[in-house]
Amino acid sequence: MVPKGDNRHRWVCAACETIHYQNPKVVVGCVPEQDGRILLCKRAIQPRYGFWTVPAGFMELGETMAEGAARETLEEACAEVSIGHLFACVDVVQAGQVHVFFTGELLGGYGVGEETLEADLFEKDQIPWDEIAFPSGYFALKKYLEDDGINNGTHLHWVRKKRS
Amino acid sequence: MVPKGDNRHRWVCAACETIHYQNPKVVVGCVPEQDGRILLCKRAIQPRYGFWTVPAGFMELGETMAEGAARETLEEACAEVSIGHLFACVDVVQAGQVHVFFTGELLGGYGVGEETLEADLFEKDQIPWDEIAFPSGYFALKKYLEDDGINNGTHLHWVRKKRS
Repeated sequence: MVPKGDNRHRWVCAACETIHYQNPKVVVGCVPEQDGRILLCKRAIQPRYGFWTVPAGFMELGETMAEGAARETLEEACAEVSIGHLFACVDVVQAGQVHVFFTGELLGGYGVGEETLEADLFEKDQIPWDEIAFPSGYFALKKYLEDDGINNGTHLHWVRKKRS
Repeated sequence: MVPKGDNRHRWVCAACETIHYQNPKVVVGCVPEQDGRILLCKRAIQPRYGFWTVPAGFMELGETMAEGAARETLEEACAEVSIGHLFACVDVVQAGQVHVFFTGELLGGYGVGEETLEADLFEKDQIPWDEIAFPSGYFALKKYLEDDGINNGTHLHWVRKKRS
């Protein structure tokens, strides 16, 4: 139904009339770098099981985007990072998501989180481009490397979507 | 309760066990400029009734951030804009929101939307700084003017939050 004063259909509880708004979710991630190498995780979950990704996941209430990116890196790669700066925003309309990427300095070691099969440091000329899980992460990694991302602070990459 | 495989309390329907995740929402807006003047709206709703704001509101499913910013401008100021580029991202942790701002060119006239008391074009040296509704919009306007925002395409402003 369309609630009073609104112009869109919303999910409304038939019992208590609570309106359950559904809006895009924010996915936050980072590109962890250490000694010129990039930390990637091989996904242990669907979608894209077995493909590589930068650490990223759904932002939670009560945290900043940067805190979320650091938390996801800890959860997925058991790795502590010092977040640098926001460098890419990507609309993922079909999934109802916005993906936001940060630079990050990998501070120590890394491991394998619950949603990860394997984590590894890759030389910048050995990124497994054909096995990157998602276009947004592919875009972020490409732009990161073009920029020398860890050293460039305020250059934003945002894709103007051409939609029919 | 904490669903299996999760590490946070979530709202779970007692009847059907559907998990209702609650995540931060994205607010998208723009700074509409025309002949060197900026379009602002005086809010007709709470919070901050009677204060001025750039057009902005909750991003909806099925749209890009830029499309959302243009839609909100149409809804709040009856104004068509050509969106330029993304120039500011602001964490608003206490509200569970991320605010994203675009440059925009105001293409024609403007009016008063349902959530607006009054809309007006302001010279850049006559922005009513003491009556701006929200810190994020204040920040965006300041950075926009510092940058000459409509003419500068890839400079991103993002605030590193210092939190205790």
